[in-house]
Amino acid sequence: MELETRNTLYNQAKEWVMEAGSIIRDQIGAPLEINTKSNPNDLVTTMDKNTEYFFVSRIKRAFPDHLIISEEGYGDDLKNLKGTVWIIDPIDGTMNFVHQKRNFAISVGIYHDGIGEIGLVYNVMDDILYSAKRGEGAYKNDFNLPMLPADRKITESIIGMNHYWLCENRLVDEKVMEHFVRTIRGTRLYGSAALEFAYVAEGIIDGYISMSLAPWDIAAGCVIVNEVGGISTNAWGEDINFLGKNTIVACNPAIQRRIIDDYLQKGRK
Amino acid sequence: MELETRNTLYNQAKEWVMEAGSIIRDQIGAPLEINTKSNPNDLVTTMDKNTEYFFVSRIKRAFPDHLIISEEGYGDDLKNLKGTVWIIDPIDGTMNFVHQKRNFAISVGIYHDGIGEIGLVYNVMDDILYSAKRGEGAYKNDFNLPMLPADRKITESIIGMNHYWLCENRLVDEKVMEHFVRTIRGTRLYGSAALEFAYVAEGIIDGYISMSLAPWDIAAGCVIVNEVGGISTNAWGEDINFLGKNTIVACNPAIQRRIIDDYLQKGRK
Repeated sequence: MELETRNTLYNQAKEWVMEAGSIIRDQIGAPLEINTKSNPNDLVTTMDKNTEYFFVSRIKRAFPDHLIISEEGYGDDLKNLKGTVWIIDPIDGTMNFVHQKRNFAISVGIYHDGIGEIGLVYNVMDDILYSAKRGEGAYKNDFNLPMLPADRKITESIIGMNHYWLCENRLVDEKVMEHFVRTIRGTRLYGSAALEFAYVAEGIIDGYISMSLAPWDIAAGCVIVNEVGGISTNAWGEDINFLGKNTIVACNPAIQRRIIDDYLQKGRK
Repeated sequence: MELETRNTLYNQAKEWVMEAGSIIRDQIGAPLEINTKSNPNDLVTTMDKNTEYFFVSRIKRAFPDHLIISEEGYGDDLKNLKGTVWIIDPIDGTMNFVHQKRNFAISVGIYHDGIGEIGLVYNVMDDILYSAKRGEGAYKNDFNLPMLPADRKITESIIGMNHYWLCENRLVDEKVMEHFVRTIRGTRLYGSAALEFAYVAEGIIDGYISMSLAPWDIAAGCVIVNEVGGISTNAWGEDINFLGKNTIVACNPAIQRRIIDDYLQKGRK
């Protein structure tokens, strides 16, 4: 993608993200219609749908040849990532949105021929935008995020992860994950994948692991993490497939092989 | 405790909390001397010690007959809770303080003859003070926090808890806790007990459970949670002992007995 094209796209995407965020903030106290999707805890609200429609309608009008992968069904059904593809989660962390009215994000990744060019993760209620363009560094609002520390030790790492890794599961022996939890310095869990990627990029957690995430949860975050020297793969160290669900390890490069080789691969079922 | 005495104490405590917070914010970017205590992940910094000294020296000067229980050793060695006792954690969430430079709190509880009269939990970097006086409601800055919803279902609850509950442990069968995690709507983990209590009071999580907390981690939080109708006990539903370590369940009363009876007691070792 040409730099000028990318800059134009970035500016437009950022403007829409901020506008959508402003609308959400204005309506944060209004009554919500809440439904469930794949399971009783997979929540969706009218705000998720309206926000996605906000983006899709504008993208289709301004960039009719662009394609869209998005959570709530207004996007396209893609078989490949050719061309320019917007990968959008209108509200990442819907459970937080419903229960906490904060700690959720708008996540917009823009990929061209499968390569992540732009990532925007907007913490709506805190008015904090994490952003990146490929090769141009990552930002927290106007602050240029430094490269992740190369000397981070696994024993001094804080890892974002949910509790299911310690439950009986189809992926990794929970006893190996128990050893992992007892090896690292601490765990955290914030309830928004997009924000956890942003926190990895910011260095306030050193890694984030998840058993199953959709493209819209991670597309923006991968671009941002990459720009500070972080690495995002699936749980086995392989490339992420942005057309389907993935296991995820996004982390500081100093601990990436340790997490994958010594724990996830070692305990792999 | 007489109301006038309590008001005077509250105003003084709040003033010191805000002043200590301001000092911490001013120095948040300065280099830290970090040491470890009981284990390699039990961190303490010069800032913890300096902040505790800030409080202890002022309390001893202004209220020479008051007693102090505090984390870093400047307090008294108490055998009972008679009289007026300040229970202080100068920086609750030291790991967050060191690694994230946010998401930590100053926690100050003031008890009289064993009864919690005043609770202050100050999220320093966000400049948000959770506060309560017994019988007068709880506040988030100037906002009067509403009573917790009486109709909260366990299946729609979000619980703050660490991952050790799912590891082999001396307290509760981890398989029962696995069932617990699969029953509730979601888990969160923020890394500051004082803030997790505050979040329970705010209703953004419905409960917080911990295997081992010291008096200074919870003294302020208990007062605040109590003022919105929440309940704080040990893991078996018994009164908390503010002179030693406790297991903790702080939560919405609608789910308290379910958590204790159906999971913690049921899985008790």
